[in-house]
Amino acid sequence: MRISEVAALALATRLLEAHRAPRDHAVLQARVLVTAEMKGRPLHGLHCLPRLVEQIKRGVIDPETKGTQRWRADAVMEVEGSSGFGPVVAMAAIERLAPHIPDLGIGLFAVRNANHLGMLAHYVEAIAAMGFIGIALSSSESLVQPFGGTRAMLGTNPVAVAVPTAEEPLVLDLATGLVPLARINHHAATGMPNPEGRPTTDPDRTKAGALAPFEDAKGHGLGIAMELLVAAIAGTALAPDVRGTPDSQSPCNKGGDVFIMIEPSLASGLPARLSAYLDAVRTAPPPAAGDPLLVPGDRARRRQEAASRNGFDIDQRLWEDLNALSRSRILAFEGQRS
Amino acid sequence: MRISEVAALALATRLLEAHRAPRDHAVLQARVLVTAEMKGRPLHGLHCLPRLVEQIKRGVIDPETKGTQRWRADAVMEVEGSSGFGPVVAMAAIERLAPHIPDLGIGLFAVRNANHLGMLAHYVEAIAAMGFIGIALSSSESLVQPFGGTRAMLGTNPVAVAVPTAEEPLVLDLATGLVPLARINHHAATGMPNPEGRPTTDPDRTKAGALAPFEDAKGHGLGIAMELLVAAIAGTALAPDVRGTPDSQSPCNKGGDVFIMIEPSLASGLPARLSAYLDAVRTAPPPAAGDPLLVPGDRARRRQEAASRNGFDIDQRLWEDLNALSRSRILAFEGQRS
Repeated sequence: MRISEVAALALATRLLEAHRAPRDHAVLQARVLVTAEMKGRPLHGLHCLPRLVEQIKRGVIDPETKGTQRWRADAVMEVEGSSGFGPVVAMAAIERLAPHIPDLGIGLFAVRNANHLGMLAHYVEAIAAMGFIGIALSSSESLVQPFGGTRAMLGTNPVAVAVPTAEEPLVLDLATGLVPLARINHHAATGMPNPEGRPTTDPDRTKAGALAPFEDAKGHGLGIAMELLVAAIAGTALAPDVRGTPDSQSPCNKGGDVFIMIEPSLASGLPARLSAYLDAVRTAPPPAAGDPLLVPGDRARRRQEAASRNGFDIDQRLWEDLNALSRSRILAFEGQRS
Repeated sequence: MRISEVAALALATRLLEAHRAPRDHAVLQARVLVTAEMKGRPLHGLHCLPRLVEQIKRGVIDPETKGTQRWRADAVMEVEGSSGFGPVVAMAAIERLAPHIPDLGIGLFAVRNANHLGMLAHYVEAIAAMGFIGIALSSSESLVQPFGGTRAMLGTNPVAVAVPTAEEPLVLDLATGLVPLARINHHAATGMPNPEGRPTTDPDRTKAGALAPFEDAKGHGLGIAMELLVAAIAGTALAPDVRGTPDSQSPCNKGGDVFIMIEPSLASGLPARLSAYLDAVRTAPPPAAGDPLLVPGDRARRRQEAASRNGFDIDQRLWEDLNALSRSRILAFEGQRS
């Protein structure tokens, strides 16, 4: 079924508010989930909502905290997430660091003990909207095998980069596993087979096994470098010891979220030069008939614009479940109050 | 033929000194070329030496300058390379920034108008040896096609990362093109066909055409993100306007070298935890018989250690050419002096 952005935001916000989330936290967490749906990344979307609710109920998410920031050095903040929502903790830190970036030129913060961020693109886009270059790295449970190995020893270790230009930013959001964790979880939940041509196409077996790194040796190298970068910067757990991203039982200890914000060069005409270059790539010959070249971020941006006008498709069962969850909770909540 | 590290360093240093390079500059540039040979990356090795000499003679390399550094912000330096040797300019900036990293936590410098760096691993290893995390990004002429396109619009855009641990650092050095530029140049020079299975295996046609990005869409995304990151941070030319990396005619204007230095978390026991994790990856089951898993940097390090003991193989013709070049120049040089 098709739903509108407004209806999705309203439902998600209401549901989170009914579970002790202050309004601004509920709005932000809902915004991150709904934006993922609109960008065509439903695996970071509304299907995460029942798990978030479950995690609040079990006390492994504290919906009220923004985390606390502490300067570790002149240009580096450590953020204790205190089991807050990933988006709430990260955006609070971005807003705290941002006013210092013009003076510093570059700044970094490392988050520990916050919950799942969802789609990293959201954060680097927010940073680019402030006029800065954004880089985000995150770690996860062990899901990816080292090159030549068969046991999962690496996280899916996504990397996101946004570079502001005179027009739309370039936005890269890349998992270093062959396929993102969220897709495996989704295939396991729905019984769809995994993409063809892999040693295993059964998602349950994949979950029990390990994802291949993308492009084998290069992807492995990149994945393991991101693994060590995050752990070395944030001082947090390495993949085999990480808990609490996909399950709702354990407090999330990954903490390995690293954000870097950089003031671009002030060279005259640079933003226009960057846009012109991206346009030249988009119009480079020869695109397949009717299929112009894209640069990272284009496809997701177009989908989001279309979804903003026309709504987006969602699994009917999920939407009904969310509505039922919302109604029951709100009745219970209002019952307590009256 | 096989030559020793000492002989290679002595010859390269002597040749560069005979072309106006001060001793410390000659030693450093020679060290970078010889280390590449020893690490099994001859394409960044001694065969570059005649081109460097040619570039000095044409005045497009100034062998005497270290470049000049200027603080652009509290944690960011801009480096004007003034056509110096890439290694000399970069190492001078690393040494200038390093003492500030414990206070800053993170710092960045962007180089303009310096010559070819060679193997990026060299610099991030030097940064890791100081106890810092090193990240290096570089740009180049247009050599890689966008995903879906056929015209080269991207540089090979290498990325290097080193993370210090309690033992050897992790060292990643990755080009975002399917094969590095240096290999294409080498195949073109020697008439060897390019790696099989590509639309073109003729290296001259490849040089006239474009390299595929590695792993198609993901490699393209990463490549174009690095392209924009470097240009946006350094304010330098984008690939289609870059000159002077492989040719010896034009002054090198790429300038797009970006280095980031980060103080690791001081979390107790972290370096040992990182080493233990890398050891767990190395010994993860099941390695192919007799073929233990490697982490990025292992293979190159082993080769370098072996080459340090036993010397390394070099094309006999190249070695003879270098010796002839060295003798003729030194005679001429001594003739001028006497």
